[in-house]
Amino acid sequence: MTIIVVDAMGGDYAPHQIVEGAVEAACEHDIDVLLVGQSDAIRAELDRCKFDGSNIHIHQAEETISMGEDPVRAIRRKPNSSIVVGLNMVRNGKADAFVSGGSTGAVTAAALLILGRKKHISRPALGVTFETSAGSTLLLDVGANSDCKPQNLVQFANMGHIYMQRIFGIPKPRIGLLSSGEETTKGNKLARSTYPLLAKSEMNFIGNVEGQDIPKGGVDVIVTDGFTGNVVIKLSEGLGEVLSELSRQSNSEGPVLKEAKRRVLNHTAGALLLGVSGNVIITHGKSDALAIKQTIGVAEQMTKQGVLEAIGH
Amino acid sequence: MTIIVVDAMGGDYAPHQIVEGAVEAACEHDIDVLLVGQSDAIRAELDRCKFDGSNIHIHQAEETISMGEDPVRAIRRKPNSSIVVGLNMVRNGKADAFVSGGSTGAVTAAALLILGRKKHISRPALGVTFETSAGSTLLLDVGANSDCKPQNLVQFANMGHIYMQRIFGIPKPRIGLLSSGEETTKGNKLARSTYPLLAKSEMNFIGNVEGQDIPKGGVDVIVTDGFTGNVVIKLSEGLGEVLSELSRQSNSEGPVLKEAKRRVLNHTAGALLLGVSGNVIITHGKSDALAIKQTIGVAEQMTKQGVLEAIGH
Repeated sequence: MTIIVVDAMGGDYAPHQIVEGAVEAACEHDIDVLLVGQSDAIRAELDRCKFDGSNIHIHQAEETISMGEDPVRAIRRKPNSSIVVGLNMVRNGKADAFVSGGSTGAVTAAALLILGRKKHISRPALGVTFETSAGSTLLLDVGANSDCKPQNLVQFANMGHIYMQRIFGIPKPRIGLLSSGEETTKGNKLARSTYPLLAKSEMNFIGNVEGQDIPKGGVDVIVTDGFTGNVVIKLSEGLGEVLSELSRQSNSEGPVLKEAKRRVLNHTAGALLLGVSGNVIITHGKSDALAIKQTIGVAEQMTKQGVLEAIGH
Repeated sequence: MTIIVVDAMGGDYAPHQIVEGAVEAACEHDIDVLLVGQSDAIRAELDRCKFDGSNIHIHQAEETISMGEDPVRAIRRKPNSSIVVGLNMVRNGKADAFVSGGSTGAVTAAALLILGRKKHISRPALGVTFETSAGSTLLLDVGANSDCKPQNLVQFANMGHIYMQRIFGIPKPRIGLLSSGEETTKGNKLARSTYPLLAKSEMNFIGNVEGQDIPKGGVDVIVTDGFTGNVVIKLSEGLGEVLSELSRQSNSEGPVLKEAKRRVLNHTAGALLLGVSGNVIITHGKSDALAIKQTIGVAEQMTKQGVLEAIGH
């Protein structure tokens, strides 16, 4: 049985929406869900949801790391926080994956500290999936590494390649390098130095892609440094919020706008932390029950499809 | 009288839409417009528009630089191209500003070669204005310099400061540094090194801003390197195209979607090339007559408000 640990205390709507999403996932999937956090609060939410199944369990963790705390310091000072306790369960083999809507910095730092890096991965990366009319596109890194070397981007491509193969069943995922022009001569030093490395790799490298290719699709994996990737996801999120605001003002939201927002607000499946020795997904802080349910589904898929094992030791 | 040179041959809809936009601008503004390009084609378009004013003139330039050509080589090989001829008119004081929808690379390279840099500006930058519910935001650089030094970004901020003061009448423009987090410690090396320089400048530096602040506004000038800025404008443009495609599929475009597209597709005013010794605006290749008219209006404002003189010698 696949066991998913869910941080019941992470996110703007915790524990309410987290527990609700976990209950929905536990009903739909053949998994065990371990809700880690303050037992009383979780129990109250479970009662509210009238959950009567046997595949949700509560694991007490009295401390919570808040968004504003310094990640590394918080992890050291709060060994009984839901993040640290949850990741330790993955480390000790008591669970297969960890899902949290807590501070991205804290979860990333804790995962590195507790689970460690995969042997051949010098820098783990955060990946986010965009929905396009031409399929899903995985963009990484979206924030774990602000400054990257060409070799880091090649490793990101490798991990993205494996993820899209295993989770989306694409035999030869198309890999694109985010740049400022299609030609090989375009881009900053990092992109220009990465291009030949990807070109000589055994992956299906389709060359440079540009900003417009992210929402348009036609590429399965796009690699970039965590600074640029972070600007990309926050810009698309901001545009999604502008769309929402415009809808509210006009009291109307047609199906077109709804679909546009679904594509722009791309965080429903959470950000995958690839390259650490454990399945870790960080959901958006604003995740609702539906997003949590979907993320737990992705965590289950990652476990079943052996993404972690395929990335290496 | 302000004289604006317009490249009649640049852009996907040239000369048709360019001439039509120039005619509209010439009717609305108290300016002289010089259409540079193939006289016969321009004349035919002017006849079609039934223009009977006296403030549009034609200047022959038989060659055209196409989008695919290597910029520097094309400029050298085609001294009679509309781009080279038009920029030379600005250089020789025969015109106040140059507007082109031609290749960004070619116009930028030609402007550097023909007009030269402003004395204290080591790297000219391309700036694009975003429309937000909280006012206009100028983002620069969006593609002239893929790799930047902190001092470049400070110069971009200075030019943006002057532009927003002169054109938008904002006494103390708010300057933001695009980064991957609000805290001073966030961002890549470039952003972290630029932060203290902007903080000690005399400008109204409001600190780091993030991707979502571009569409949300609340900041007048955002500086970044040309690689990140280029990804930003192409991503927003791509999202605009996705919105258009969704509208087409559903045969509906409500006012909300229209407004959203107006904000996402931000190129109506063209990209300002700031830091060269002449007013140069590069319009989007897909610009229609309305966009050309608006860009000519911006070129007139830049001339009248002395943006160029304020930037320095």
